[in-house]
Amino acid sequence: MSAAAHPTKGLDETVHQRHRLGILTIAAEAESADFGYLQDALGITPGNLSRHLTVLEEAGLIQVHTGYEGKRPRTWVRMTARDGQALAAEIAALTDLLRQHEAARAD
Amino acid sequence: MSAAAHPTKGLDETVHQRHRLGILTIAAEAESADFGYLQDALGITPGNLSRHLTVLEEAGLIQVHTGYEGKRPRTWVRMTARDGQALAAEIAALTDLLRQHEAARAD
Repeated sequence: MSAAAHPTKGLDETVHQRHRLGILTIAAEAESADFGYLQDALGITPGNLSRHLTVLEEAGLIQVHTGYEGKRPRTWVRMTARDGQALAAEIAALTDLLRQHEAARAD
Repeated sequence: MSAAAHPTKGLDETVHQRHRLGILTIAAEAESADFGYLQDALGITPGNLSRHLTVLEEAGLIQVHTGYEGKRPRTWVRMTARDGQALAAEIAALTDLLRQHEAARAD
């Protein structure tokens, strides 16, 4: 039996890692998301969130902006055009995976 | 703005890692899959595949069987009941994620 390429071949670890996938989908949904919101939504520590933001920023997938709201420092995350493409590729691969899994169960 | 729990909170790294997700979905579809088939389908090296199989076996998600086909040694992977549950949870979380992402894009 020779193997067809599996949909997981189309997944990129930079985007697929669960917290980074969370950050990217939230940034895509909200266009801009703040640090505290991301931390609550994903249920991770500030240090862990910072590390994942750095990976995504270095890959050119997000822009991180810092500033003040009144006297309170704040950090926002915005998606980039490349993030849009990378996330679209991930979503397409996951959609294929679920479709294939569903079809196999229905047999 | 307070944050609702994001679907990525429901993803478990043991199952979510892309190659392991590939192994588990193939094992679920085929009930049993052989080493060479998995390697072809996932496009990974034998060493990398072995490492991921060990992680899944230690988590109780798959059983690895070795034997002979004629004189040729072969390795098969079978899913366990726990794999079925873990994969079902992953598939459910991914389905929620895609549904939420699609709904946000449609707004």
